[in-house]
Amino acid sequence: MGEETRDRIVTATYRALCEHGYAALTIQDIADECDCSTALVHYHYDTKEDLLVALLEDLLDRFEERVAACEGPPRDRLVSLVELLLFGDDRTTDAPSGFSAALLELRAQARHNDAFRAQLAENDALVHATVTGVLEQGIESGDFRPVDAERTAEHLLAAVRGARTRWVTLEADAAPEAVYRALVEDVIDGWLVDR
Amino acid sequence: MGEETRDRIVTATYRALCEHGYAALTIQDIADECDCSTALVHYHYDTKEDLLVALLEDLLDRFEERVAACEGPPRDRLVSLVELLLFGDDRTTDAPSGFSAALLELRAQARHNDAFRAQLAENDALVHATVTGVLEQGIESGDFRPVDAERTAEHLLAAVRGARTRWVTLEADAAPEAVYRALVEDVIDGWLVDR
Repeated sequence: MGEETRDRIVTATYRALCEHGYAALTIQDIADECDCSTALVHYHYDTKEDLLVALLEDLLDRFEERVAACEGPPRDRLVSLVELLLFGDDRTTDAPSGFSAALLELRAQARHNDAFRAQLAENDALVHATVTGVLEQGIESGDFRPVDAERTAEHLLAAVRGARTRWVTLEADAAPEAVYRALVEDVIDGWLVDR
Repeated sequence: MGEETRDRIVTATYRALCEHGYAALTIQDIADECDCSTALVHYHYDTKEDLLVALLEDLLDRFEERVAACEGPPRDRLVSLVELLLFGDDRTTDAPSGFSAALLELRAQARHNDAFRAQLAENDALVHATVTGVLEQGIESGDFRPVDAERTAEHLLAAVRGARTRWVTLEADAAPEAVYRALVEDVIDGWLVDR
C-alpha cells in the first residue's frame, strides 16, 4: 500500500514538473496532481529534493527496463539506444516535453546540490556502462571495429546530450534529427561497423 | 568614456557571475566587482537581464576575434575550433570555471526568457555557421571528404556541448578530453579528412 502511494506521488511529481518546471515547483502542485494532501506527500518524502531524487531513480529503472527490451545484433541495439536517449518519448511530438527542460534545470543545479549530483552521476554512469557494454559485445563478435569502447561511448553520449540541450533550450527542432542521422550514418554505420 | 564604463561593467559582470552563479547574482555583486555604485550600473543597464545579454554579446565578439586568429589548413582550423569550444580558457585548469556553470544556468532559463533565448540563439547560429564554413572550405579544397557540412557541424557541436555539460555539472573531468580525442582522431582524422 505504501509502495503504491509512493508510486502515485512520484508519477504526480513527474506531471507537475512537466507543467511548472523545477524552480517554480511546490509540494502543493504535486499534491494537486496526486489528488491528495500535502501532508501525505510530506509523510512519504521529507523535501522536494527527496522527491526529485526518487523521480530520477524511477527514470533509471525505466531506462533499465527499456534497455532489457532492446534486441537484435549489436548495431541495432546501439541504434535503438541512441534513439531512446536522443528522443525519449518525444520522437513523435514537435516539441520536447517540459520534463526534458526540467531535467536540464536539475543538471544546472547539480553543481550546488549534492543529492542531485550523486543521483545524476549514478544515472549517467549506468547509461555509459550500458552503451560501453553494447560496444564491447559488438567488438568481440566482430560486428564493430576494435575501437576504444569507453571513448566512443563518451562521444556518442556527449552528442546525444548536446543535441537534447539545444532542442530543449532553443527549440532547435532540427538538431536531434540531424545528430541522430550523423551518429547512425557517419559514426555507427560509417566507421564503427566492420564490413 | 561611456563605452569604457560599459566595458568595465560587463567585465565585472563576468567575474561576479563566475563567483556567485546566475540565480544568486545581484546588481550589488556587480557594483562591488566594478568598484562603483549600483546607480552607475543601473544608469547603463536597466536590469540584470540586460547585463547578461550584453555579456553574451561580448562573448560572441571574443569568439569572432579568436576565430579570425585561427590559421592554417582547414583540418587544423577545425581542430582549433573544437579545442576552443570544448575547453575555452579552462584547458589548463583542473576544473571548469564558474562561468561555464553560469552559462548552463542561462541556457536552462532560455526556455522561459525571450531575451536570453534570442541572444543564445544568435551566439549558437554564429558558431554553427563558422564550423559549417570551415567544413565547406575544406570540402572545396579537397582536404575533407564531401560530407554534409551542416549535419557534421551539428554533430561536432552537439558533442562539444554535451561534454562541457557533463564536465560542468558532474565534475566528470575525463569527459572533455575523451570527447576531444574522439572528435579529432575518430571523426576529423578518421573519416572526415580525405587521404
